[in-house]
Amino acid sequence: MAGKMHIAKSRNDMGEAMYRIVLRDYLTKTIEHAEDLAKALLYQAEQHVETIMPAHTHTQPAQPTTLGHYLVALYDNLTRDIERLKQAYRTVNQSPMGAAAITTSGFPINRERMVELLEFDSLIENSYDAIGSGDYLTEAAQALISLMTNMGRWLQELLRMSSKEVGLIKVSDAYVQISSIMPQKRNPVSIEHSRSIASSAAAEGIAVVHMVHNTPFGDINDTEDDLQPHLYAGFNKGIRVLQLMEAVITTMEFDKERAYQQARENMITITELADVLARDYDVSFRKAHHKASVISKKADKLGKELYELSVDKVNEWIEDVKISEQDWKEIVDPYYFVERRKVTGGPNPNVVREMIKKRMKRW
Amino acid sequence: MAGKMHIAKSRNDMGEAMYRIVLRDYLTKTIEHAEDLAKALLYQAEQHVETIMPAHTHTQPAQPTTLGHYLVALYDNLTRDIERLKQAYRTVNQSPMGAAAITTSGFPINRERMVELLEFDSLIENSYDAIGSGDYLTEAAQALISLMTNMGRWLQELLRMSSKEVGLIKVSDAYVQISSIMPQKRNPVSIEHSRSIASSAAAEGIAVVHMVHNTPFGDINDTEDDLQPHLYAGFNKGIRVLQLMEAVITTMEFDKERAYQQARENMITITELADVLARDYDVSFRKAHHKASVISKKADKLGKELYELSVDKVNEWIEDVKISEQDWKEIVDPYYFVERRKVTGGPNPNVVREMIKKRMKRW
Amino acid sequence: MAGKMHIAKSRNDMGEAMYRIVLRDYLTKTIEHAEDLAKALLYQAEQHVETIMPAHTHTQPAQPTTLGHYLVALYDNLTRDIERLKQAYRTVNQSPMGAAAITTSGFPINRERMVELLEFDSLIENSYDAIGSGDYLTEAAQALISLMTNMGRWLQELLRMSSKEVGLIKVSDAYVQISSIMPQKRNPVSIEHSRSIASSAAAEGIAVVHMVHNTPFGDINDTEDDLQPHLYAGFNKGIRVLQLMEAVITTMEFDKERAYQQARENMITITELADVLARDYDVSFRKAHHKASVISKKADKLGKELYELSVDKVNEWIEDVKISEQDWKEIVDPYYFVERRKVTGGPNPNVVREMIKKRMKRW
Amino acid sequence: MAGKMHIAKSRNDMGEAMYRIVLRDYLTKTIEHAEDLAKALLYQAEQHVETIMPAHTHTQPAQPTTLGHYLVALYDNLTRDIERLKQAYRTVNQSPMGAAAITTSGFPINRERMVELLEFDSLIENSYDAIGSGDYLTEAAQALISLMTNMGRWLQELLRMSSKEVGLIKVSDAYVQISSIMPQKRNPVSIEHSRSIASSAAAEGIAVVHMVHNTPFGDINDTEDDLQPHLYAGFNKGIRVLQLMEAVITTMEFDKERAYQQARENMITITELADVLARDYDVSFRKAHHKASVISKKADKLGKELYELSVDKVNEWIEDVKISEQDWKEIVDPYYFVERRKVTGGPNPNVVREMIKKRMKRW
Repeated sequence: MAGKMHIAKSRNDMGEAMYRIVLRDYLTKTIEHAEDLAKALLYQAEQHVETIMPAHTHTQPAQPTTLGHYLVALYDNLTRDIERLKQAYRTVNQSPMGAAAITTSGFPINRERMVELLEFDSLIENSYDAIGSGDYLTEAAQALISLMTNMGRWLQELLRMSSKEVGLIKVSDAYVQISSIMPQKRNPVSIEHSRSIASSAAAEGIAVVHMVHNTPFGDINDTEDDLQPHLYAGFNKGIRVLQLMEAVITTMEFDKERAYQQARENMITITELADVLARDYDVSFRKAHHKASVISKKADKLGKELYELSVDKVNEWIEDVKISEQDWKEIVDPYYFVERRKVTGGPNPNVVREMIKKRMKRW
Repeated sequence: MAGKMHIAKSRNDMGEAMYRIVLRDYLTKTIEHAEDLAKALLYQAEQHVETIMPAHTHTQPAQPTTLGHYLVALYDNLTRDIERLKQAYRTVNQSPMGAAAITTSGFPINRERMVELLEFDSLIENSYDAIGSGDYLTEAAQALISLMTNMGRWLQELLRMSSKEVGLIKVSDAYVQISSIMPQKRNPVSIEHSRSIASSAAAEGIAVVHMVHNTPFGDINDTEDDLQPHLYAGFNKGIRVLQLMEAVITTMEFDKERAYQQARENMITITELADVLARDYDVSFRKAHHKASVISKKADKLGKELYELSVDKVNEWIEDVKISEQDWKEIVDPYYFVERRKVTGGPNPNVVREMIKKRMKRW
Repeated sequence: MAGKMHIAKSRNDMGEAMYRIVLRDYLTKTIEHAEDLAKALLYQAEQHVETIMPAHTHTQPAQPTTLGHYLVALYDNLTRDIERLKQAYRTVNQSPMGAAAITTSGFPINRERMVELLEFDSLIENSYDAIGSGDYLTEAAQALISLMTNMGRWLQELLRMSSKEVGLIKVSDAYVQISSIMPQKRNPVSIEHSRSIASSAAAEGIAVVHMVHNTPFGDINDTEDDLQPHLYAGFNKGIRVLQLMEAVITTMEFDKERAYQQARENMITITELADVLARDYDVSFRKAHHKASVISKKADKLGKELYELSVDKVNEWIEDVKISEQDWKEIVDPYYFVERRKVTGGPNPNVVREMIKKRMKRW
Repeated sequence: MAGKMHIAKSRNDMGEAMYRIVLRDYLTKTIEHAEDLAKALLYQAEQHVETIMPAHTHTQPAQPTTLGHYLVALYDNLTRDIERLKQAYRTVNQSPMGAAAITTSGFPINRERMVELLEFDSLIENSYDAIGSGDYLTEAAQALISLMTNMGRWLQELLRMSSKEVGLIKVSDAYVQISSIMPQKRNPVSIEHSRSIASSAAAEGIAVVHMVHNTPFGDINDTEDDLQPHLYAGFNKGIRVLQLMEAVITTMEFDKERAYQQARENMITITELADVLARDYDVSFRKAHHKASVISKKADKLGKELYELSVDKVNEWIEDVKISEQDWKEIVDPYYFVERRKVTGGPNPNVVREMIKKRMKRW
């Protein structure tokens, strides 16, 4: 029997099979850690469906929303990357076994049986394809690049919110670097580090695509032992980022008062005035917009925020309409701004609660 | 009514919707052209299930196969890229409408209705996600990078086969550059050009990932008007490559005699001798391998190819076994090498015919 | 004579010469605009040698410096990129003329004369090198990538300083986007735009390197008409970024009071206490550091900044040393912190003035 | 004294100094190995100034040249990359010491003295620049990317020439992979491997640029411990490629007969006929070109190479001019083609010998 051990096997198909087995394990681990992070985001979202904060556009505060609403957005973004990782897993987890050197074998081997034994999902049928293709490498690499690039965007945001000047997020002591002489200087190095490792992980993925680029289709060194370490390093770094961020998200504190204040400063609720005039006071949308514009300009000239104006002063400026004191109170308060946005996917606390419940059910 | 035209709409969600609509059209067109190319590959494969040629490993001829077998491998490789394009389409074709600036609206708008009206597949539920995410851009870009990088590998192969020295592929007159003074110099510039445009198209995709990298999550310029042209240029170039290659594949001629000769030179059928000895002459696999090795070394010393040796000379060298004249004839003939490989996915003509039939049925 | 027009000329060397002539013009223009920006940085630096602001490390305020000191750093960084552009110019501006198709000519042509006529700096001697090499393309592309990547880093900083929360830079009206309804929302889109165009320009450079990658050395399409547009687009975008930033830098306003306040908050001058104790009160450096640490911790507990503490309270906490009122005043004042750093390259106003003067002399 | 050990030093400037010291050593080693390879190229060139071979354009044989001429082109290309490495060395080898955390120190330190002690070439004057800039990293990375990308192009060529079908280069036994059963299959894995490691090395350089991209200017993690390993891995891989190729170049054999034959096949000397008619037989260039074109077409129809035609047959086709037997002999012989190209930088053996001598003198 031993004499037949080598029949219909080759360094080529065994090598490819081994690469795929190792890679599917990296993908599995990465998916698990990404799911843990996704859950952490959703749990934090649940705690903060009523935590008002400013949404930014073009790096400036633009409208009030809630931290819960924001974290569900990150969750959904991450969920699509998990889906891409799973898609890559399906491409990777196919069996090349029996392709032998590149043309299968003259012996009556059973390729389908090897699929089962090695726990692959399916077979790469054409043997030249099984040995010659490298798209399972690039798809796995690209799933990683995508995950890291997308996460990198909210890492930038968390860093911003952790800065002294913005001051919304307080990263837990375990994940900051503290100077012995400056106890108040709490460098959020865990997030900064995550950004740099995320770039490094993505770069390992870019290396994979680069190594495959402009090589001939077929059995070549470029897709083999020299390339694989980039994938392993890439996924290991990716997992480290996922773990770090899960820990940071789970343990961070959020300064609700400061966030609330930032969400009513800079007159960012002013569009609400136009909406209220149009909806409840029978003013045409164009005129309502003009009136709101007048108010904000006059307030700006006085150096006042909206919440510092009396309803009488406002009505005086609006001229031909009189809005009620309650309406004005709601217009300047970011809580009402958020509360009123209750259409599908909006920041209204009940809407966000429903979104979270629906997502938790999928687990 | 006109006064309500602007209610609950914003430059933000309309901009995003427009980007997605344009991009889904590019994806649709690219998928169509990729499917045309895939069909061209399969039609050519059908013509060449019995066309013997050498399979290369590590840039050297390694074993006989058929052009049909090879082209089905390219087809399968391309098919997976079409699948990735379709996956990207599904991610792209989701509606951000109703997200307004980023927090939806205080008006009771119907976001689901806009999904239908604009022929999106589904809704991006969370409004912050709808405005802030850019993963639909990177997924589309990566599907393009993958397509171009994978095609680039067999473009390299076609170029090699079109070179004077290898001489297997004759690109049709319409797709070569001919010098007035050197009529025999037929530069296969259509393939060379395809390689360079494929790199350029992939680079446009890389540009998309680069522009998104390390930007903040949210509404930013980096994912908008400055980025989109890279996608459009990328897909246009990609489509050009697909069109060029469909034309080249459809019209190319293949030098069967030369390919057959290259498939029996360099003793690339020698492993068959070991297999025959083990399978039909009751020689242990280890011994069979040793005997084959002896034959190839002796032939090499004489400067002879296997097909130039008589069976008597071979039997003299093998020593204790006598192989039949018919067996030796089959061992040195690449046709029998290919014929014998009839397991799933092998180059045997009937096996390849079945693979082609199965694939054609899916259309 | 006309009959000899085509002697010893070829599409190859003329094409390469043309590419190099166009590219040297792009480099020249880019260098000019980069020098204009460099001057704008230095002029602004000159206005702000006494403008105190916090230096950041790890995204947190770390020590006081001046805007002048900071802008000279940007100037020096940019100057090195100008040097790299000039180096690329020298590589580009060499003549391939006379290399003909790739082996020169059998006619006695004068290649040196063509160098002069076409205003090249020198000759690419070996004709195979003249036609086959593409390193002038990658060097030009890399000079652009470097310029954009380095500028991109301070664009990120300017954006941060322009945000509402940080509020140090007020971009001039001409370079912000203003909402009709939110007059106070001044999106610094010129800087944001510059970041995205800088990434796009760098990506064009990356495309050049990508197209050259893994192609054969020699006369190929990949380095020719399909590649050149990436360079032209890249440099045009680069020039746009340089122009935008020159305008922004020249016209921006800086909030000196707020910057001064941020430079004394968060106890970022505390290291000065340790230095003063070591230098002027004969305390060992280790002990001085410990004492400073005690002060900052006690202040932190009280929720006070250093400048809110009386010297008596401080001396009580320090225990065995008594620092003078003047010394304490200087320790908590960022101006003195800066003033005292007068070694080579430090932020002391006179030192910075000298640096500026020295750089201006080089023009 | 020990108590003053820590005065005016900081983790920041010491860290940067250490990075620069390690990096300058990598650059020095890489330059040394690149110079060794350059010498190997020139020594081989010296052996082959009379070795005729075909120059390729657009992947097809185009004109005769010599291996010596070709190798000098590679040498010159490599020499420019060595120059770029030296330029990067000069940028790297500057001292940040004394910049301390980022603003120098209040103590009267001597930064110039530290330049000498640590054997830096010069000082990075502005302390914010010294800590905040990362362009020394990207310049070193780009010098590596350039070296690997340019070398990668002739690695592709050497691989092609080593293939069975082209058969010009025989890589030495020590640098091929030999199958026990196929002694004639000599996979040139050393070159293939070099291509893949070169791509991997370049990718490490790309990682450096990627990590720096869109980070803030200043002291950040992204340019520090997470980034440096990419540089070290990149240069180590680069050095491995340089070593492998030095060995391959030094020990390879070149098949002169086959190369000579390929240089006269495919009528690639036909342009010489036009030149001879124009130069020596007083035919206008346009007419000479037309006549050459007629000859090549007629030969092509007969399926003959130029050297298979008699001068009488040629003169019969040319019609109104009679070229001498000696002239025709020279026209069809690639040796004369090469011999005649003796202008600056041409393949004429004496011209190439002079080029080699001049380059050797520079060492």
